[in-house]
Amino acid sequence: MAKVQVCLSPALLPYYSLENHVVVVTDVLRATSTMIKALDLGIGQILPVASRSEATSYINKPGYLVAGERDGKKVEGFDLGNSPLELANKQSDFQDNILVMTTTNGTKAIEASKEAAKTLIGSLSNLDAVANQLKHSQQDILILCAGWKNRVNMEDTLFAGGLCNRLLSDHQIYGDAAIMSLQLFHANEQQLYESIRKATHFQRLKDHGIEDDILYCMTLNSSDTVGILEDGYIIKL
Amino acid sequence: MAKVQVCLSPALLPYYSLENHVVVVTDVLRATSTMIKALDLGIGQILPVASRSEATSYINKPGYLVAGERDGKKVEGFDLGNSPLELANKQSDFQDNILVMTTTNGTKAIEASKEAAKTLIGSLSNLDAVANQLKHSQQDILILCAGWKNRVNMEDTLFAGGLCNRLLSDHQIYGDAAIMSLQLFHANEQQLYESIRKATHFQRLKDHGIEDDILYCMTLNSSDTVGILEDGYIIKL
Repeated sequence: MAKVQVCLSPALLPYYSLENHVVVVTDVLRATSTMIKALDLGIGQILPVASRSEATSYINKPGYLVAGERDGKKVEGFDLGNSPLELANKQSDFQDNILVMTTTNGTKAIEASKEAAKTLIGSLSNLDAVANQLKHSQQDILILCAGWKNRVNMEDTLFAGGLCNRLLSDHQIYGDAAIMSLQLFHANEQQLYESIRKATHFQRLKDHGIEDDILYCMTLNSSDTVGILEDGYIIKL
Repeated sequence: MAKVQVCLSPALLPYYSLENHVVVVTDVLRATSTMIKALDLGIGQILPVASRSEATSYINKPGYLVAGERDGKKVEGFDLGNSPLELANKQSDFQDNILVMTTTNGTKAIEASKEAAKTLIGSLSNLDAVANQLKHSQQDILILCAGWKNRVNMEDTLFAGGLCNRLLSDHQIYGDAAIMSLQLFHANEQQLYESIRKATHFQRLKDHGIEDDILYCMTLNSSDTVGILEDGYIIKL
Protein backbone atom coordinates (compact mmCIF):
# COMPACT_ATOMS: atom_id res chain seq x y z
CA MET A 1 0.00 0.00 0.00
CA ALA A 2 1.41 3.38 -0.98
CA LYS A 3 2.27 5.78 1.86
CA VAL A 4 1.16 9.34 2.50
CA GLN A 5 3.52 11.49 4.53
CA VAL A 6 3.31 15.13 5.59
CA CYS A 7 6.18 17.60 5.78
CA LEU A 8 5.02 20.54 7.89
CA SER A 9 7.65 23.04 6.75
CA PRO A 10 10.06 23.43 3.81
CA ALA A 11 12.86 23.52 6.41
CA LEU A 12 12.05 19.88 7.25
CA LEU A 13 12.15 18.72 3.63
CA PRO A 14 15.77 17.47 3.85
CA TYR A 15 14.50 14.77 6.25
CA TYR A 16 12.10 13.29 3.70
CA SER A 17 12.74 11.47 0.47
CA LEU A 18 11.40 13.00 -2.74
CA GLU A 19 12.62 10.22 -5.02
CA ASN A 20 9.75 8.46 -6.78
CA HIS A 21 7.27 10.49 -4.72
CA VAL A 22 4.35 12.58 -5.81
CA VAL A 23 4.67 15.85 -3.92
CA VAL A 24 1.57 17.94 -3.28
CA VAL A 25 2.62 21.48 -2.44
CA THR A 26 0.15 23.60 -0.51
CA ASP A 27 0.16 27.24 0.52
CA VAL A 28 -3.49 27.77 1.34
CA LEU A 29 -3.09 31.46 2.25
CA ARG A 30 -2.75 32.19 -0.59
CA ALA A 31 -0.29 31.12 -3.30
CA THR A 32 -1.69 27.75 -4.30
CA SER A 33 -5.31 28.94 -3.96
CA THR A 34 -4.43 31.80 -6.29
CA MET A 35 -2.74 29.44 -8.77
CA ILE A 36 -5.78 27.17 -9.01
CA LYS A 37 -8.01 30.22 -9.48
CA ALA A 38 -5.69 31.49 -12.24
CA LEU A 39 -5.88 28.18 -14.12
CA ASP A 40 -9.67 28.27 -13.78
CA LEU A 41 -9.77 31.79 -15.18
CA GLY A 42 -7.99 30.80 -18.36
CA ILE A 43 -4.29 31.26 -17.61
CA GLY A 44 -2.56 28.49 -19.54
CA GLN A 45 0.78 28.45 -17.75
CA ILE A 46 2.06 29.71 -14.41
CA LEU A 47 5.79 30.20 -13.95
CA PRO A 48 6.55 30.02 -10.22
CA VAL A 49 9.81 31.76 -9.38
CA ALA A 50 11.37 31.82 -5.94
CA SER A 51 13.03 35.22 -6.10
CA ARG A 52 11.52 38.65 -6.45
CA SER A 53 14.31 39.74 -8.78
CA GLU A 54 13.59 36.94 -11.23
CA ALA A 55 9.91 37.91 -11.27
CA THR A 56 10.81 41.56 -11.77
CA SER A 57 12.66 40.73 -15.00
CA TYR A 58 9.30 39.80 -16.57
CA ILE A 59 7.63 43.17 -15.88
CA ASN A 60 6.33 44.76 -19.10
CA LYS A 61 7.44 41.75 -21.14
CA PRO A 62 4.74 40.97 -23.74
CA GLY A 63 2.77 37.82 -22.99
CA TYR A 64 3.59 37.85 -19.27
CA LEU A 65 1.71 39.04 -16.23
CA VAL A 66 3.67 39.31 -13.01
CA ALA A 67 2.01 38.49 -9.67
CA GLY A 68 3.25 38.17 -6.16
CA GLU A 69 3.61 39.31 -2.61
CA ARG A 70 6.18 39.63 0.09
CA ASP A 71 5.03 39.52 3.71
CA GLY A 72 1.42 39.36 2.53
CA LYS A 73 1.59 42.58 0.48
CA LYS A 74 1.57 43.03 -3.32
CA VAL A 75 5.03 43.84 -4.66
CA GLU A 76 5.30 47.34 -6.11
CA GLY A 77 5.40 47.35 -9.90
CA PHE A 78 3.80 43.90 -10.25
CA ASP A 79 0.58 43.55 -12.28
CA LEU A 80 -1.15 41.55 -9.55
CA GLY A 81 -0.80 40.59 -5.91
CA ASN A 82 -1.42 37.11 -4.55
CA SER A 83 -5.20 37.24 -4.33
CA PRO A 84 -7.65 34.81 -5.96
CA LEU A 85 -10.48 37.35 -5.75
CA GLU A 86 -8.39 40.13 -7.31
CA LEU A 87 -7.64 37.74 -10.20
CA ALA A 88 -11.34 37.08 -10.70
CA ASN A 89 -11.86 40.81 -11.26
CA LYS A 90 -9.19 41.00 -13.95
CA GLN A 91 -10.20 37.99 -16.00
CA SER A 92 -10.13 39.79 -19.37
CA ASP A 93 -6.35 40.18 -19.25
CA PHE A 94 -5.62 36.50 -18.85
CA GLN A 95 -5.99 34.61 -22.09
CA ASP A 96 -2.72 33.97 -23.88
CA ASN A 97 -0.66 35.27 -20.98
CA ILE A 98 1.81 33.42 -18.81
CA LEU A 99 1.47 34.29 -15.13
CA VAL A 100 4.83 34.72 -13.37
CA MET A 101 4.38 34.33 -9.61
CA THR A 102 6.59 34.80 -6.60
CA THR A 103 5.39 34.63 -3.00
CA THR A 104 6.88 34.58 0.48
CA ASN A 105 6.43 30.84 1.00
CA GLY A 106 4.53 29.00 -1.73
CA THR A 107 6.76 29.47 -4.74
CA LYS A 108 9.83 28.60 -2.64
CA ALA A 109 8.17 25.34 -1.59
CA ILE A 110 7.43 24.50 -5.23
CA GLU A 111 11.06 25.21 -6.09
CA ALA A 112 12.16 22.90 -3.24
CA SER A 113 10.02 20.05 -4.58
CA LYS A 114 11.72 19.85 -7.99
CA GLU A 115 13.45 16.54 -7.26
CA ALA A 116 10.07 14.81 -6.93
CA ALA A 117 8.71 12.47 -9.59
CA LYS A 118 5.67 14.71 -9.90
CA THR A 119 4.53 17.95 -8.23
CA LEU A 120 0.84 18.80 -7.85
CA ILE A 121 -0.64 22.06 -6.59
CA GLY A 122 -3.04 21.66 -3.67
CA SER A 123 -5.38 24.03 -1.89
CA LEU A 124 -8.58 23.63 0.06
CA SER A 125 -10.36 24.93 -3.05
CA ASN A 126 -9.32 21.84 -5.05
CA LEU A 127 -8.91 19.28 -2.24
CA ASP A 128 -11.24 16.63 -3.70
CA ALA A 129 -9.86 17.09 -7.21
CA VAL A 130 -6.33 16.39 -5.96
CA ALA A 131 -7.57 13.46 -3.86
CA ASN A 132 -9.41 11.91 -6.81
CA GLN A 133 -6.29 12.26 -8.92
CA LEU A 134 -4.18 10.42 -6.29
CA LYS A 135 -6.67 7.87 -4.98
CA HIS A 136 -5.63 5.04 -7.24
CA SER A 137 -1.98 5.97 -7.61
CA GLN A 138 0.58 3.40 -6.47
CA GLN A 139 3.23 6.05 -5.82
CA ASP A 140 4.12 7.28 -2.37
CA ILE A 141 2.88 10.78 -1.63
CA LEU A 142 4.47 13.62 0.31
CA ILE A 143 2.30 16.61 1.20
CA LEU A 144 4.57 19.64 1.55
CA CYS A 145 3.20 22.53 3.59
CA ALA A 146 4.70 25.88 2.63
CA GLY A 147 4.23 27.26 6.14
CA TRP A 148 5.14 30.80 7.06
CA LYS A 149 8.86 31.59 6.72
CA ASN A 150 9.67 27.99 7.60
CA ARG A 151 7.39 27.88 10.65
CA VAL A 152 4.44 25.50 10.53
CA ASN A 153 0.99 26.96 10.05
CA MET A 154 -2.57 25.86 10.69
CA GLU A 155 -4.11 26.29 7.25
CA ASP A 156 -1.56 24.22 5.34
CA THR A 157 -1.68 21.54 8.03
CA LEU A 158 -5.48 21.42 7.68
CA PHE A 159 -5.12 20.88 3.92
CA ALA A 160 -2.63 18.09 4.62
CA GLY A 161 -5.01 16.48 7.11
CA GLY A 162 -7.92 16.84 4.71
CA LEU A 163 -6.00 15.13 1.92
CA CYS A 164 -4.91 12.33 4.30
CA ASN A 165 -8.56 11.94 5.21
CA ARG A 166 -9.55 11.54 1.55
CA LEU A 167 -6.73 9.03 0.91
CA LEU A 168 -7.21 6.94 4.08
CA SER A 169 -8.88 3.95 2.47
CA ASP A 170 -6.28 3.40 -0.26
CA HIS A 171 -3.09 4.60 1.42
CA GLN A 172 -1.11 4.16 4.60
CA ILE A 173 -1.06 7.37 6.65
CA TYR A 174 2.59 7.29 7.60
CA GLY A 175 4.46 9.22 10.28
CA ASP A 176 3.37 11.37 13.18
CA ALA A 177 3.09 14.59 11.14
CA ALA A 178 0.45 12.91 8.97
CA ILE A 179 -1.40 11.50 12.00
CA MET A 180 -1.32 14.91 13.69
CA SER A 181 -2.57 16.67 10.53
CA LEU A 182 -5.43 14.22 10.22
CA GLN A 183 -6.47 14.73 13.86
CA LEU A 184 -6.35 18.50 13.41
CA PHE A 185 -8.49 18.26 10.28
CA HIS A 186 -11.08 16.20 12.15
CA ALA A 187 -11.08 18.73 15.01
CA ASN A 188 -11.65 21.66 12.65
CA GLU A 189 -13.40 20.42 9.52
CA GLN A 190 -16.80 21.78 10.52
CA GLN A 191 -15.36 25.24 10.98
CA LEU A 192 -12.37 25.70 8.75
CA TYR A 193 -12.74 29.45 8.42
CA GLU A 194 -13.38 29.90 12.13
CA SER A 195 -10.35 27.78 13.02
CA ILE A 196 -8.13 30.09 11.02
CA ARG A 197 -9.40 33.26 12.65
CA LYS A 198 -7.35 32.27 15.69
CA ALA A 199 -4.27 31.46 13.63
CA THR A 200 -1.30 33.77 13.43
CA HIS A 201 -1.31 34.23 9.68
CA PHE A 202 -4.91 35.38 9.75
CA GLN A 203 -4.00 38.13 12.16
CA ARG A 204 -1.17 39.10 9.82
CA LEU A 205 -3.36 39.08 6.70
CA LYS A 206 -6.48 40.71 8.03
CA ASP A 207 -4.47 43.87 8.58
CA HIS A 208 -4.15 43.94 4.80
CA GLY A 209 -7.94 43.93 4.35
CA ILE A 210 -8.29 40.56 2.68
CA GLU A 211 -10.83 38.76 4.85
CA ASP A 212 -12.88 37.87 1.76
CA ASP A 213 -9.82 36.22 0.24
CA ILE A 214 -9.34 34.18 3.39
CA LEU A 215 -12.96 33.06 3.42
CA TYR A 216 -12.52 31.95 -0.21
CA CYS A 217 -9.25 30.13 0.54
CA MET A 218 -10.75 28.30 3.54
CA THR A 219 -13.75 27.04 1.55
CA LEU A 220 -13.58 23.46 0.26
CA ASN A 221 -13.88 22.37 -3.35
CA SER A 222 -14.88 25.43 -5.32
CA SER A 223 -12.73 24.05 -8.18
CA ASP A 224 -12.19 20.71 -9.85
CA THR A 225 -8.85 21.73 -11.33
CA VAL A 226 -5.58 19.94 -10.58
CA GLY A 227 -2.40 21.88 -11.27
CA ILE A 228 0.79 20.05 -12.15
CA LEU A 229 4.37 21.27 -12.52
CA GLU A 230 5.81 20.40 -15.95
CA ASP A 231 9.17 21.69 -17.15
CA GLY A 232 9.03 24.49 -14.61
CA TYR A 233 5.50 25.62 -15.52
CA ILE A 234 2.27 24.86 -13.69
CA ILE A 235 -0.48 23.78 -16.06
CA LYS A 236 -3.95 22.27 -15.76
CA LEU A 237 -3.79 18.48 -15.64
CA MET B 1 1.49 39.16 28.91
CA ALA B 2 4.38 36.76 28.32
CA LYS B 3 4.16 34.52 25.26
CA VAL B 4 4.40 30.74 24.94
CA GLN B 5 5.60 29.42 21.60
CA VAL B 6 6.23 25.88 20.41
CA CYS B 7 9.05 24.72 18.13
CA LEU B 8 8.11 21.29 16.79
CA SER B 9 11.59 20.21 15.70
CA PRO B 10 15.20 21.22 16.43
CA ALA B 11 15.54 21.85 12.67
CA LEU B 12 13.04 24.72 13.05
CA LEU B 13 14.89 26.34 15.96
CA PRO B 14 16.74 28.85 13.72
CA TYR B 15 13.33 30.46 13.04
CA TYR B 16 12.70 31.24 16.71
CA SER B 17 14.42 33.62 19.07
CA LEU B 18 16.06 32.17 22.17
CA GLU B 19 17.20 35.50 23.56
CA ASN B 20 15.64 36.23 26.96
CA HIS B 21 13.47 33.13 26.59
CA VAL B 22 12.97 30.24 28.95
CA VAL B 23 13.30 27.13 26.82
CA VAL B 24 11.60 23.93 27.95
CA VAL B 25 13.19 20.99 26.15
CA THR B 26 11.16 17.82 25.86
CA ASP B 27 11.95 14.37 24.53
CA VAL B 28 9.16 12.34 26.09
CA LEU B 29 10.29 9.00 24.62
CA ARG B 30 12.57 8.88 26.49
CA ALA B 31 15.50 11.21 27.21
CA THR B 32 13.84 13.88 29.34
CA SER B 33 11.62 11.33 31.13
CA THR B 34 14.79 9.41 32.01
CA MET B 35 16.54 12.57 33.21
CA ILE B 36 13.72 13.50 35.58
CA LYS B 37 13.69 9.93 36.90
CA ALA B 38 17.46 10.06 37.44
CA LEU B 39 17.19 13.27 39.46
CA ASP B 40 14.42 11.68 41.54
CA LEU B 41 16.60 8.63 42.20
CA GLY B 42 19.39 10.68 43.70
CA ILE B 43 21.62 11.59 40.78
CA GLY B 44 22.94 15.06 41.61
CA GLN B 45 24.09 16.13 38.17
CA ILE B 46 23.42 15.01 34.61
CA LEU B 47 25.88 15.96 31.90
CA PRO B 48 24.03 15.89 28.55
CA VAL B 49 26.42 15.45 25.64
CA ALA B 50 25.41 15.51 22.00
CA SER B 51 27.97 13.08 20.63
CA ARG B 52 28.49 9.43 21.35
CA SER B 53 32.27 9.85 21.27
CA GLU B 54 32.17 12.49 24.01
CA ALA B 55 30.07 10.17 26.19
CA THR B 56 32.41 7.27 25.51
CA SER B 57 35.34 9.23 26.98
CA TYR B 58 33.64 8.98 30.41
CA ILE B 59 33.39 5.17 30.44
CA ASN B 60 35.11 3.69 33.53
CA LYS B 61 35.95 7.18 34.82
CA PRO B 62 35.41 7.17 38.62
CA GLY B 63 32.35 9.15 39.70
CA TYR B 64 30.64 8.90 36.31
CA LEU B 65 27.94 6.66 34.92
CA VAL B 66 27.39 6.72 31.18
CA ALA B 67 23.91 6.32 29.74
CA GLY B 68 22.45 6.58 26.30
CA GLU B 69 20.96 5.20 23.16
CA ARG B 70 21.18 5.52 19.43
CA ASP B 71 18.11 4.64 17.36
CA GLY B 72 16.32 3.55 20.54
CA LYS B 73 18.95 0.98 21.57
CA LYS B 74 21.46 1.13 24.46
CA VAL B 75 24.96 1.93 23.25
CA GLU B 76 27.40 -0.94 23.73
CA GLY B 77 29.81 -0.37 26.59
CA PHE B 78 27.60 2.20 28.33
CA ASP B 79 26.51 1.56 31.94
CA LEU B 80 22.86 2.30 31.15
CA GLY B 81 20.46 2.77 28.25
CA ASN B 82 17.84 5.51 28.06
CA SER B 83 15.18 3.88 30.20
CA PRO B 84 13.56 5.38 33.30
CA LEU B 85 12.50 1.94 34.56
CA GLU B 86 15.97 0.45 34.07
CA LEU B 87 17.31 3.34 36.17
CA ALA B 88 14.84 2.57 38.94
CA ASN B 89 16.27 -0.94 39.19
CA LYS B 90 19.85 0.31 39.60
CA GLN B 91 19.25 2.94 42.24
CA SER B 92 22.06 1.85 44.56
CA ASP B 93 24.73 2.92 42.06
CA PHE B 94 23.56 6.48 41.83
CA GLN B 95 24.52 8.54 44.83
CA ASP B 96 27.63 10.68 44.29
CA ASN B 97 27.75 9.84 40.59
CA ILE B 98 27.41 12.18 37.65
CA LEU B 99 25.24 10.73 34.89
CA VAL B 100 26.63 11.38 31.41
CA MET B 101 23.86 11.03 28.82
CA THR B 102 23.69 11.03 25.04
CA THR B 103 20.59 10.19 23.02
CA THR B 104 19.44 10.32 19.40
CA ASN B 105 17.34 13.46 19.79
CA GLY B 106 17.02 14.78 23.34
CA THR B 107 20.57 15.68 24.23
CA LYS B 108 21.04 17.35 20.84
CA ALA B 109 17.97 19.51 21.51
CA ILE B 110 19.39 20.52 24.90
CA GLU B 111 22.68 21.42 23.23
CA ALA B 112 20.77 23.53 20.68
CA SER B 113 19.01 25.49 23.44
CA LYS B 114 22.19 26.81 25.05
CA GLU B 115 21.64 30.41 23.90
CA ALA B 116 18.45 30.62 25.97
CA ALA B 117 18.23 32.61 29.19
CA LYS B 118 17.21 29.41 31.00
CA THR B 119 16.68 25.78 29.95
CA LEU B 120 14.25 23.52 31.81
CA ILE B 121 13.75 19.79 31.29
CA GLY B 122 10.16 18.80 30.55
CA SER B 123 8.38 15.47 30.27
CA LEU B 124 4.82 14.31 30.79
CA SER B 125 6.04 12.88 34.11
CA ASN B 126 6.77 16.39 35.44
CA LEU B 127 4.31 18.46 33.39
CA ASP B 128 2.58 20.16 36.33
CA ALA B 129 5.87 20.79 38.13
CA VAL B 130 7.24 22.64 35.09
CA ALA B 131 3.94 24.50 34.64
CA ASN B 132 3.90 25.61 38.27
CA GLN B 133 7.47 26.83 37.94
CA LEU B 134 6.59 28.94 34.87
CA LYS B 135 3.08 30.09 35.76
CA HIS B 136 4.08 33.40 37.27
CA SER B 137 7.17 34.03 35.18
CA GLN B 138 7.21 37.22 33.11
CA GLN B 139 9.65 35.75 30.59
CA ASP B 140 8.60 34.49 27.17
CA ILE B 141 8.68 30.71 26.88
CA LEU B 142 9.68 28.46 23.98
CA ILE B 143 8.83 24.77 24.21
CA LEU B 144 11.35 22.85 22.12
CA CYS B 145 10.28 19.39 20.96
CA ALA B 146 13.22 17.07 20.30
CA GLY B 147 11.27 15.10 17.67
CA TRP B 148 12.74 12.11 15.89
CA LYS B 149 15.78 12.92 13.75
CA ASN B 150 14.37 16.37 13.08
CA ARG B 151 10.91 15.15 12.14
CA VAL B 152 8.03 16.17 14.39
CA ASN B 153 6.53 13.57 16.68
CA MET B 154 3.27 13.10 18.53
CA GLU B 155 4.50 12.59 22.08
CA ASP B 156 6.61 15.74 22.29
CA THR B 157 3.82 17.75 20.66
CA LEU B 158 1.39 16.42 23.30
CA PHE B 159 3.74 17.59 26.05
CA ALA B 160 3.92 21.01 24.36
CA GLY B 161 0.13 21.16 24.15
CA GLY B 162 -0.23 20.06 27.76
CA LEU B 163 2.13 22.76 28.95
CA CYS B 164 0.31 25.38 26.84
CA ASN B 165 -2.91 24.19 28.45
CA ARG B 166 -1.48 24.71 31.95
CA LEU B 167 -0.15 28.17 31.06
CA LEU B 168 -3.25 29.45 29.20
CA SER B 169 -4.56 31.72 31.91
CA ASP B 170 -1.33 33.63 32.50
CA HIS B 171 0.30 33.56 29.06
CA GLN B 172 -0.48 34.27 25.43
CA ILE B 173 -0.46 31.06 23.36
CA TYR B 174 1.44 32.43 20.39
CA GLY B 175 1.82 31.02 16.89
CA ASP B 176 0.13 28.21 15.00
CA ALA B 177 2.45 25.48 16.30
CA ALA B 178 1.32 26.29 19.85
CA ILE B 179 -2.36 26.42 18.84
CA MET B 180 -2.01 23.10 17.00
CA SER B 181 -0.24 21.47 19.96
CA LEU B 182 -2.96 22.64 22.32
CA GLN B 183 -5.70 21.23 20.07
CA LEU B 184 -3.88 17.92 19.80
CA PHE B 185 -3.51 17.75 23.57
CA HIS B 186 -7.23 18.35 24.01
CA ALA B 187 -8.00 15.64 21.44
CA ASN B 188 -5.78 13.08 23.20
CA GLU B 189 -5.55 13.99 26.89
CA GLN B 190 -7.96 11.28 28.03
CA GLN B 191 -5.91 8.61 26.29
CA LEU B 192 -2.30 9.70 26.12
CA TYR B 193 -0.89 6.19 26.08
CA GLU B 194 -3.43 4.99 23.53
CA SER B 195 -2.73 7.96 21.28
CA ILE B 196 0.92 7.02 21.13
CA ARG B 197 0.28 3.41 20.21
CA LYS B 198 -0.57 4.68 16.71
CA ALA B 199 2.48 6.92 16.52
CA THR B 200 5.54 6.00 14.52
CA HIS B 201 8.03 6.12 17.36
CA PHE B 202 5.98 3.66 19.38
CA GLN B 203 6.19 1.14 16.57
CA ARG B 204 9.95 1.72 16.52
CA LEU B 205 10.35 1.33 20.29
CA LYS B 206 8.04 -1.56 20.96
CA ASP B 207 10.30 -3.73 18.84
CA HIS B 208 12.88 -3.15 21.57
CA GLY B 209 10.57 -4.52 24.24
CA ILE B 210 10.03 -1.35 26.23
CA GLU B 211 6.27 -1.02 26.36
CA ASP B 212 6.43 -0.55 30.14
CA ASP B 213 8.80 2.35 29.65
CA ILE B 214 6.40 3.93 27.19
CA LEU B 215 3.47 3.54 29.59
CA TYR B 216 5.58 5.24 32.27
CA CYS B 217 6.63 8.05 29.92
CA MET B 218 3.04 8.71 28.78
CA THR B 219 1.71 8.98 32.36
CA LEU B 220 1.21 12.47 33.74
CA ASN B 221 2.81 13.88 36.87
CA SER B 222 4.56 11.00 38.59
CA SER B 223 7.24 13.49 39.66
CA ASP B 224 7.32 16.99 41.10
CA THR B 225 10.91 17.58 40.06
CA VAL B 226 12.00 20.36 37.72
CA GLY B 227 15.36 19.93 36.02
CA ILE B 228 17.37 22.98 34.98
CA LEU B 229 20.52 23.32 32.91
CA GLU B 230 23.27 25.15 34.81
CA ASP B 231 26.81 25.48 33.49
CA GLY B 232 26.25 22.51 31.20
CA TYR B 233 24.83 20.23 33.93
CA ILE B 234 21.21 19.39 34.61
CA ILE B 235 20.35 19.66 38.28
CA LYS B 236 17.21 19.66 40.40
CA LEU B 237 15.75 23.14 40.73
